[in-house]
Amino acid sequence: MSKSDKLQDLNSLNPADVTICETTQKMLAKAHRDGVETAFDRAANMKACPIGEKSACCKHCAMGPCRLNAKDPYSKVGVCGATIDTIQSRNFARMVASGTASHTDHGMEMLNLFKGVVSGHIKDYEISDTEKLIQVAGELGIATEDREVLDIARDLCAEMEKTYTQIEGELPFIKRAPKKTQEMWREAGVVPRGAMREIMEITTRTHMGMDQDHTNLIKQINRTALADGWGGSMVATEIGDMLFGTPYPVVGEVNMGVLKEDEVNIIIHGHEPNLFDSMLASVNDPELIAKAQASGAKGINLVGMCCSGLEMLSRRGVPHAGNFMSTEAILVTGAVDAMAVDVQCIKQGLAKVADCYGTKLFTTNPRAHIEGVPHIEFEEDYPRECTDTVVEMAIKRYAGRTAPIDIPKRKDKGVFGFSHEYINYMLGGTFRGSYTPLNDNIINGRIRGVAGVVGCTNPRVKQDYVHVELVKELIKNDILVVQTGCSQISLAKAGLLTPEAAHLAGPGLAEVCETVGMPPVLGLGACVDNSRILTAVCNMVAAGGLGDSIADLPVAGAAPEWMSEKAIAIGQYFVASGVYTIFGVTFPIVEQTKFYKLMFEDLEKQGMGKWDFAVDPHDMAAKMIAHIEKKRAALGLDKDKERVLVGMDDRRAIEA
Amino acid sequence: MSKSDKLQDLNSLNPADVTICETTQKMLAKAHRDGVETAFDRAANMKACPIGEKSACCKHCAMGPCRLNAKDPYSKVGVCGATIDTIQSRNFARMVASGTASHTDHGMEMLNLFKGVVSGHIKDYEISDTEKLIQVAGELGIATEDREVLDIARDLCAEMEKTYTQIEGELPFIKRAPKKTQEMWREAGVVPRGAMREIMEITTRTHMGMDQDHTNLIKQINRTALADGWGGSMVATEIGDMLFGTPYPVVGEVNMGVLKEDEVNIIIHGHEPNLFDSMLASVNDPELIAKAQASGAKGINLVGMCCSGLEMLSRRGVPHAGNFMSTEAILVTGAVDAMAVDVQCIKQGLAKVADCYGTKLFTTNPRAHIEGVPHIEFEEDYPRECTDTVVEMAIKRYAGRTAPIDIPKRKDKGVFGFSHEYINYMLGGTFRGSYTPLNDNIINGRIRGVAGVVGCTNPRVKQDYVHVELVKELIKNDILVVQTGCSQISLAKAGLLTPEAAHLAGPGLAEVCETVGMPPVLGLGACVDNSRILTAVCNMVAAGGLGDSIADLPVAGAAPEWMSEKAIAIGQYFVASGVYTIFGVTFPIVEQTKFYKLMFEDLEKQGMGKWDFAVDPHDMAAKMIAHIEKKRAALGLDKDKERVLVGMDDRRAIEA
Repeated sequence: MSKSDKLQDLNSLNPADVTICETTQKMLAKAHRDGVETAFDRAANMKACPIGEKSACCKHCAMGPCRLNAKDPYSKVGVCGATIDTIQSRNFARMVASGTASHTDHGMEMLNLFKGVVSGHIKDYEISDTEKLIQVAGELGIATEDREVLDIARDLCAEMEKTYTQIEGELPFIKRAPKKTQEMWREAGVVPRGAMREIMEITTRTHMGMDQDHTNLIKQINRTALADGWGGSMVATEIGDMLFGTPYPVVGEVNMGVLKEDEVNIIIHGHEPNLFDSMLASVNDPELIAKAQASGAKGINLVGMCCSGLEMLSRRGVPHAGNFMSTEAILVTGAVDAMAVDVQCIKQGLAKVADCYGTKLFTTNPRAHIEGVPHIEFEEDYPRECTDTVVEMAIKRYAGRTAPIDIPKRKDKGVFGFSHEYINYMLGGTFRGSYTPLNDNIINGRIRGVAGVVGCTNPRVKQDYVHVELVKELIKNDILVVQTGCSQISLAKAGLLTPEAAHLAGPGLAEVCETVGMPPVLGLGACVDNSRILTAVCNMVAAGGLGDSIADLPVAGAAPEWMSEKAIAIGQYFVASGVYTIFGVTFPIVEQTKFYKLMFEDLEKQGMGKWDFAVDPHDMAAKMIAHIEKKRAALGLDKDKERVLVGMDDRRAIEA
Repeated sequence: MSKSDKLQDLNSLNPADVTICETTQKMLAKAHRDGVETAFDRAANMKACPIGEKSACCKHCAMGPCRLNAKDPYSKVGVCGATIDTIQSRNFARMVASGTASHTDHGMEMLNLFKGVVSGHIKDYEISDTEKLIQVAGELGIATEDREVLDIARDLCAEMEKTYTQIEGELPFIKRAPKKTQEMWREAGVVPRGAMREIMEITTRTHMGMDQDHTNLIKQINRTALADGWGGSMVATEIGDMLFGTPYPVVGEVNMGVLKEDEVNIIIHGHEPNLFDSMLASVNDPELIAKAQASGAKGINLVGMCCSGLEMLSRRGVPHAGNFMSTEAILVTGAVDAMAVDVQCIKQGLAKVADCYGTKLFTTNPRAHIEGVPHIEFEEDYPRECTDTVVEMAIKRYAGRTAPIDIPKRKDKGVFGFSHEYINYMLGGTFRGSYTPLNDNIINGRIRGVAGVVGCTNPRVKQDYVHVELVKELIKNDILVVQTGCSQISLAKAGLLTPEAAHLAGPGLAEVCETVGMPPVLGLGACVDNSRILTAVCNMVAAGGLGDSIADLPVAGAAPEWMSEKAIAIGQYFVASGVYTIFGVTFPIVEQTKFYKLMFEDLEKQGMGKWDFAVDPHDMAAKMIAHIEKKRAALGLDKDKERVLVGMDDRRAIEA
């Protein structure tokens, strides 16, 4: 047992100060009693580098690393002469590169799986949503009439592969965007060719002595980020839906109370749905269930965490135990028999905590090992070999449990799985599936606008607090909230992902929610599924009456507790797509610099969105509301209107 | 005129302390008198961040940036739990990514040009070495007999494009390596698929919460670096030779004295040969020459700097004015009428110095602008539009010269352009072109081994000094030195790239040099041409008698004054290919860590090379010589042998 020696340090941290998640608080208190350290403790003890935090340092060559003065940013330049604007735009570019690469790699893995299924050599997965397959193929210009599904699928594979490998031309899904948005991109020279090419190019353009004009580098930053949103991420989401089913609303349980003391508890944590899907098959295998029962357990309890948890919560209603900042804390329950992880946001610190409580931790992806953690490679051709082994190891650990079990009892319920397709159906009904009712209610002012509140949790701010306060404030002001990633678990734990939460909404939004029977906060999936929000805003533009481009819409995005480079890439693709995007915690740009002005003001003048920043959720809400109201005013929706049903004549006038 | 206010600071720096380059010293002294700052001054005033320098910090997510303690590296971990080994291997990986991306982008541009020439839509360039084209095509398994050159070239384009776009399989040029080296790579799982895929994958694997085991990440580090050496770089070199000619020895002039007071001086600085080649056409245009003469100049004087300078020095004998650390200093002469730059190693500081002396500075590549510097886009379809304009602007500046001209008179001569093909010819003659005479002389001990001394200059060490001292020490010890990049300009200025320098070599090497009539130090080209060294070592293995893999050879590599991420990528591809590689200045790894041990010891046990580090050139030489002698011993070459000619029977025995 390799417990921390810093027991005294640990006790100085008050769990209630670092998270509003009750179960995480309890487990942090227990961890302190047990002498176990988590990221919360490390964050308290680790002063963020004040220069690095502001992106005022550069280590892109060995003449440095150079440190500029964030308080007087133009007083110095790097050894090569790089200014603060060069340095911070380069640093920002590399964050976008890494985030985009992450979704590209994820999407390429999904495409590989899809190709295996289509070619027939992968047998453990199958196409489960042919309707979506045909619809996406049609959107990409592939002939679908009178053709076999597999035949269409083959063409679709080839077309989607261009997203990654193409070195010229335009990304296939670019055509999904509103015409005016596409034109704006072409004019700005930011339409991505293929994701891999853009990642490669941004990686050389940030090399020493390359692009040293932030107004030029921003083009490649935008192009790369767009290759994430409309490329890597969008393909990953669409293939996920074709293979595992397009989500529709499902009631799901969240929070640590989903663990069961008398069952073998297995957690899947990461980002790709394939591992989780195979694990679902494994835990339902009668032989493995019998083995679990033979070892004294009542059964096998599979739960998710982080984003692959959200994939399966949205699609299959699999319970979800918590978001990013609860992944170490849940191990402190002692009740987790095995945790299998795949890619992204897997804290290396998990290894030590798992070790302290005897939890079997396994890495499964060849691209993401952890030193000292057993690796059971997940292979899509034989997925069960990995997941069955994990189940067997979990049963063994259950049988030999030694750590005392302490599961916080709290469970919360929420409705998940609002794909953009379902929103269409939900609002318009089967007869006339459409975003028109949403637009109508925005036009008539019942709903002021739509906000995406997404992203990570981060121990540098109080876990869940910023997410929850922000969303409460937004819905109170009649702003419909859509969510992806860890953020929606924060809100689910606060009870806001239920139709009953409509009473927390302003009168207009509440009325709509009650009429439709939907929550005021809609969970759309994992962080890769931010692409669903892109598609949803395209649908809003297409439904008419709210302008011609994404930038015209009264919408805003926020990642109030972000922490990853993926979040920066996502934020940038929203900005480049026309969405006002506000981040919390910290922002890696020095204020009062030209690059700051470019990102926070000037991009908007080019027809894009813009960045904003606030730490306090109420400030953040106020800024988002102000932006939405600004957009409403630009659309002429700022005059107080009678709340009337918009008839066909009116609509024709609007759409003309 | 935006001169520095720090005149006093500037004067405190003694030029003789920071460079042994006489002309650079003179210009630094003048810059100080003029109140102009250069990278030498900035380096003196900028303390390298001690944590960043050792790669003990991580800013890959917003929970940090986290700083560990380089003096006690296992005392802390990052907020996520990342250990020092995770952090420094990730940082190292991103350097390799950027370096590899730079050569990949360069190679893709060359391929694009080549495709344009082959398809006939680019008219300003042509295939100038069809022999090489046919030979390379044959090597890559393309049928060449009884086929038109353009037909072969089309297949070659498609095959070489796989280097970048392929997502499965093996890089085409992998088959150039010795069989045993290839097998070692396959066993280690490091054979690159396509360069863009490897860059993308390493960029996600270094994201927060991904690969957190340095022993796994090293595989992708090696795979990416190999995609540089045997991919991006090698294709760039081979296409360069096909289009612009395979170099053969040419006497060239170097140093600032190549500027001419009474001519219009134009400098090309950067890395891609296409801009330079077009500029060569422009400056030979009778109309432009007449214009120059009409403005009072005797003519137009085109000189190179940095690596594109080396491309044209090696291929066309165009004079070369200096290496990386002289690019600001040369502007201080006041004699540079225009400097046009393309990509990589272009200091942003050039802008200010050019401004101070009225030099017209132009960026030309869409991927590398400099804030405030006029951009004249270079387009391969109409290359002369850019280069003619630069010449016209230079003539204008000549006519209006106001700054006093002060050109240091020194010029040095050297022999450049030792392509691996020429080495073959030179050693074996036309009758029997071969590396066998080289191997024979290594076997009989006249030559102890071969050292590659390459890379940048860096103001954190005395310019040229480490290169020159190291090379002198090596040749004194009968080690043949091959060079690429800025390093060979250091040696050329010291007179070592001439056959006459043989007297500085040990008796064995001197004997060989005198017999063949070659210098003891062979200049092979630009830094992208390190791929020539790879091909040369393959030829050495193939010639027999020195083992079966690159790792068996008595060779070593050094970059004693490195500064760029490209240098790290190059170093890593040499290490992964089996070459002992030593760097100077600083090394971005904390000693006494597991990752350090992996890089400096354990890779060698896998059949690769290994890293080493020394700042002092004599220490560095001693380490390289020790390694070469170790390899000789392993080959059984450590016994004192009679110096006899190896006969055919002996050779058959060796080769068996």
